[in-house]
Amino acid sequence: MSVVLTAVEGGFDLTIAGTLVMRHRPEAPALFVGAGRADVDMYRGNYFLSDRLDARVPLTRCTVAGDVATLSADGAPLLRLRIEGGAVAIEALDPSLNRLWLRCVAEAGERLWGGGEQLSYVDMAGRRFPMWTSEPGVGRDKSTYLTFQCDRDHRSGGDYWNTNYPQPTYLSSRRYALHVETTAYTCFDFRDPAFHEIEAWAIPARIELFAAPRFADLVGHLSTRFGRQPKLPAWAIEGAILGLKQGEESFARMEAIIAAGAIVTGLWCEDWIGLRITSFGKRLFWDWKANESRYPALKAKIAALNDRGIRFLGYVNPYLAIDGTLYQEAVAAGYLALRLDADAPYIVDFGEFDCGIVDFTNPAAADWFAERVIGGEMLDYGLSGWMADFGEYLPTDVRLHDGTDGMLAHNAWPTIWAEVNARAVASRGKTGDALFFMRAGFTGVGRYCPLLWAGDQSVDFSRHDGIGTVIRAALSSGLVGNAYHHSDLGGYTSLYGNVRTPELLMRWSELCALTPVMRSHEGNRPDDNLQLDDDPAVLAHFAAMTRLHAALAPYVTSLCDEAAATGMPLQRPLFLDWQDDADCWGVETQYGYGRDLVVAPVIEAGATRWSAYLPAGAAWIHLWSGERYEGGTTADVAAPIGEPPVFWREASDHAALFRSIPAKVNA
Amino acid sequence: MSVVLTAVEGGFDLTIAGTLVMRHRPEAPALFVGAGRADVDMYRGNYFLSDRLDARVPLTRCTVAGDVATLSADGAPLLRLRIEGGAVAIEALDPSLNRLWLRCVAEAGERLWGGGEQLSYVDMAGRRFPMWTSEPGVGRDKSTYLTFQCDRDHRSGGDYWNTNYPQPTYLSSRRYALHVETTAYTCFDFRDPAFHEIEAWAIPARIELFAAPRFADLVGHLSTRFGRQPKLPAWAIEGAILGLKQGEESFARMEAIIAAGAIVTGLWCEDWIGLRITSFGKRLFWDWKANESRYPALKAKIAALNDRGIRFLGYVNPYLAIDGTLYQEAVAAGYLALRLDADAPYIVDFGEFDCGIVDFTNPAAADWFAERVIGGEMLDYGLSGWMADFGEYLPTDVRLHDGTDGMLAHNAWPTIWAEVNARAVASRGKTGDALFFMRAGFTGVGRYCPLLWAGDQSVDFSRHDGIGTVIRAALSSGLVGNAYHHSDLGGYTSLYGNVRTPELLMRWSELCALTPVMRSHEGNRPDDNLQLDDDPAVLAHFAAMTRLHAALAPYVTSLCDEAAATGMPLQRPLFLDWQDDADCWGVETQYGYGRDLVVAPVIEAGATRWSAYLPAGAAWIHLWSGERYEGGTTADVAAPIGEPPVFWREASDHAALFRSIPAKVNA
Repeated sequence: MSVVLTAVEGGFDLTIAGTLVMRHRPEAPALFVGAGRADVDMYRGNYFLSDRLDARVPLTRCTVAGDVATLSADGAPLLRLRIEGGAVAIEALDPSLNRLWLRCVAEAGERLWGGGEQLSYVDMAGRRFPMWTSEPGVGRDKSTYLTFQCDRDHRSGGDYWNTNYPQPTYLSSRRYALHVETTAYTCFDFRDPAFHEIEAWAIPARIELFAAPRFADLVGHLSTRFGRQPKLPAWAIEGAILGLKQGEESFARMEAIIAAGAIVTGLWCEDWIGLRITSFGKRLFWDWKANESRYPALKAKIAALNDRGIRFLGYVNPYLAIDGTLYQEAVAAGYLALRLDADAPYIVDFGEFDCGIVDFTNPAAADWFAERVIGGEMLDYGLSGWMADFGEYLPTDVRLHDGTDGMLAHNAWPTIWAEVNARAVASRGKTGDALFFMRAGFTGVGRYCPLLWAGDQSVDFSRHDGIGTVIRAALSSGLVGNAYHHSDLGGYTSLYGNVRTPELLMRWSELCALTPVMRSHEGNRPDDNLQLDDDPAVLAHFAAMTRLHAALAPYVTSLCDEAAATGMPLQRPLFLDWQDDADCWGVETQYGYGRDLVVAPVIEAGATRWSAYLPAGAAWIHLWSGERYEGGTTADVAAPIGEPPVFWREASDHAALFRSIPAKVNA
Repeated sequence: MSVVLTAVEGGFDLTIAGTLVMRHRPEAPALFVGAGRADVDMYRGNYFLSDRLDARVPLTRCTVAGDVATLSADGAPLLRLRIEGGAVAIEALDPSLNRLWLRCVAEAGERLWGGGEQLSYVDMAGRRFPMWTSEPGVGRDKSTYLTFQCDRDHRSGGDYWNTNYPQPTYLSSRRYALHVETTAYTCFDFRDPAFHEIEAWAIPARIELFAAPRFADLVGHLSTRFGRQPKLPAWAIEGAILGLKQGEESFARMEAIIAAGAIVTGLWCEDWIGLRITSFGKRLFWDWKANESRYPALKAKIAALNDRGIRFLGYVNPYLAIDGTLYQEAVAAGYLALRLDADAPYIVDFGEFDCGIVDFTNPAAADWFAERVIGGEMLDYGLSGWMADFGEYLPTDVRLHDGTDGMLAHNAWPTIWAEVNARAVASRGKTGDALFFMRAGFTGVGRYCPLLWAGDQSVDFSRHDGIGTVIRAALSSGLVGNAYHHSDLGGYTSLYGNVRTPELLMRWSELCALTPVMRSHEGNRPDDNLQLDDDPAVLAHFAAMTRLHAALAPYVTSLCDEAAATGMPLQRPLFLDWQDDADCWGVETQYGYGRDLVVAPVIEAGATRWSAYLPAGAAWIHLWSGERYEGGTTADVAAPIGEPPVFWREASDHAALFRSIPAKVNA
């Protein structure tokens, strides 16, 4: 793709494929440099950042020579831009500079998508999005009482932009994409009608640009750039993964769920490492090895499950509890991140227990964790997958082996964590078979992480933290190169009396059946919340939805092939396949599940009917009624529990499969 | 006072009376200039401001010639400072500059007082204080449910720094004061241990400096600079002003309160202009003339009251309801502020009724309002005083007669509004007799406004919006030159079921008895809230407190004399009189009432005892028990309802008066 720098009127124009991206003029500069000091206030993964700004200097003077622009204010040159392939390499000419602002041309009606995994808005136009991996917040809406209580008591309410997985990359409806190559804090500000302003708390190495007339190709370029996942293993597609954490009792519960007609291909017991009882409730014991007092003879049981086509999954994160055995090994070997102010491990308080941080910038420590912990204790033990939790909490005042400043390491950590997991999987030849899933992410995470999960939704239908947010999360993360996405079936966070209703659990079963991986979760407070096997009607509905999921497997497998070939995400905004229908561009609560299905999950309580926009250029068949709809219309359909709104493309090669599904589900 | 500019190492030092205030160096500049655009979002007097910053340039180059410093970045000179007497005149040399940042030297342990009328903190050290007149907020504490509800429903919760009366002036414990002479938005940021940063959204005309070894003298200097009030009239000191707003029924209620033993010298009926019924409740009719259907024969009644030594007070604000008669007069004469986008009056929505804004930058309009409205309809009618409400709401997108930009006129408006009132009073020769009181303020308001009131507290004991805030308001506003302060007895704002308890009403009676003016208020929802005459015990207690207030009148009169002579506020931080006792410096919930009384009002619910710090250097007598305490100690005393903690200086000239008080109160 051709990025072109053209000297104009004392400044320059920067275009990609003929599209004007930056317009720099003496009286309206697009570039500013400066210096500031970050104020970082962190409480249990919730970050409150502010900048003590010293300088912000508009670079009003500019000389262009060939592919190089040299910029200054009144005096010495301060910044150099150099076109290198599809990117603009950036070099600060004054070492004191640690801030950059960049303005890109804005157009009326322009849509701006991406930003990593965004839970509240797929189209970011008109809003401001800080890019800093963190807890996503509980409630995420300052007008809700739940958010207020979380803010008041735990500083954890969050806001629309908080995410486990930010990424300083956007796609513009002007048919280009822009990526800021830095792990520093950045902020995308799309509020001004005249320009988009990107702020970076470091001088980024590069601004990378991508262009294509078709959005699908643009996504393909980003997938190529940021990493393309291996295909999902068949076992993860062909049945549900049950999340149970009741020690060996989990096995009996699984059998009962199977007996109720559910198709199960995985059992996920995050408590495989044992429990720790705190005043908050039951927590996991963060010492990454099987706890055979909680799960007697687990290794043999896993082998027996495997023989039945059911995989066993566990849990791990990058911390080590100080009262565990691995912590002692890591301390002895010098594998932990240190304090800035002492030659002692940096200890993080997780609420009545303390942990060390494995310093993955130390190659020996990363090797140890991949080989000894994940390889030796997990894969060799028989695990076929795990939740690779966290990654967002790296403190900024930490001393790392390779000397990276914490402000730059923080955002990089999720990708580093993913790489350690991927390396362990590869070491056992299990890539594409063993499956780990992460909520944290940053640029490049898709190169290592085979599956995202949408993080910790509240167990409700709320706009900014409920069931609907997982759709937006899939769409936004898919646009920047993550083909596979799923969520905790039933949601996770139950606080202040907010508990699952049967309706919520069933609607979430429907939604998860229509994502590549269908995995249940008992939530943070299992005993207070309805579980799938607590209520026969809920269980029967879940079983039916696992049959829906399984019935789709041949089609989903073809989507995995497509993803591997082109980078197209499985769940995708309608406009990726139906770009010429502008009415698709603003649709954020439906998705194309591949090109041949339109899915419009019910994400409101009390609904009995539901509306879905169907793209122009095709005819669509309602999965349950067989009713035919012309594209370019909004279908209003019955949507009782058990019949999530799904439409298939009449001309699909998979029409016979789709037509057969209702009978399989209702078997 | 000698401000000295000394060239040092490529920069300068700026001192006053030998105290280093600014230290400007190439590598650590104290001055920055820039440009930005304000984003202003306003909802019913609650403002949400943010800056779209284009440039912030450290002025690293400096040349000093005599009393002039010329500063630049790399290129042309950008800013000139010139010492002029006790001030630093500032001149921008580039007309595009509209932002200034100024850093002053900070010292460990430094205290920073003032900022106008601050309701949450008298000592501003460690926090950030925007200076923008606005609604003060309801709740003012993001951790309270009341604040949350107000934010959610009305955007009105506010925060610790919101105030009707900001003023960009601080006093430092380093024995100097600094004032920023501008009406633009400014912000005092006292969070950095190394410097205080002052931000201004315009280039201020001057930075004014004041110094004195004694804080009392520093306050005197500020009082001289910002205006010194006339003495309070005797009638305002010698009894209570009853706030009643029940139409002519108010007179009978007043008689009953007097009959219960209260000493009353004023009747304040804010509904003298009539009512308007809205869904919010009963509002006043904003057409400034007596409503003789609500108050039949009012003029004669006022005269009869005057004969008994009881003055009558009303209400006015700078708006005109569009369905009133004065609005039509103002429209016809062209006296209203206009819209930017049309030749039409700027209409403000006050909740089911609309108003025009009298444009006081038009001398004819200001004259009309002073002469025709306040003079003709109020003073000539017999009013001896009024609440001069509002002043904080001037929209920033308004077109004014003199062309002032709304961003600069907004903060100026309270002082302009005060001037109109003062001019009206002077026109009738009533200065020092007619008494109006304001909640809004800004630099210079004290030159015109004879009495502040603390605004609209919630009817509770809450830390940031309850009874205790009126003490901090008195202390902070007193430090910048406002000698007289009082509050709504009982508080004002009752929302979301928050209503007055008998205890609150009685503790507030105690507090008001010990301020120069004791004025009751029925609150925003009189019918939902306990009133003084609803409960015999509350009424008897109020009556006793009016006797306390009246008994103090000779002493308070002497304090008024002192204020007129020196600018010393009547309610004052203990350190003004007891500077050598450093333990006084942090006391914010007690005050010296003059030099001879220490008042420590009970501002918590449920208290039966109370502690008060007594300054070293004197001995103190507890008013009620006669118990003697050495200064430099904390006295813990019984504080039942009816005995607000007060201590008098044993050696006071007024000892006999103080000793006589308990008997008068309990008569």
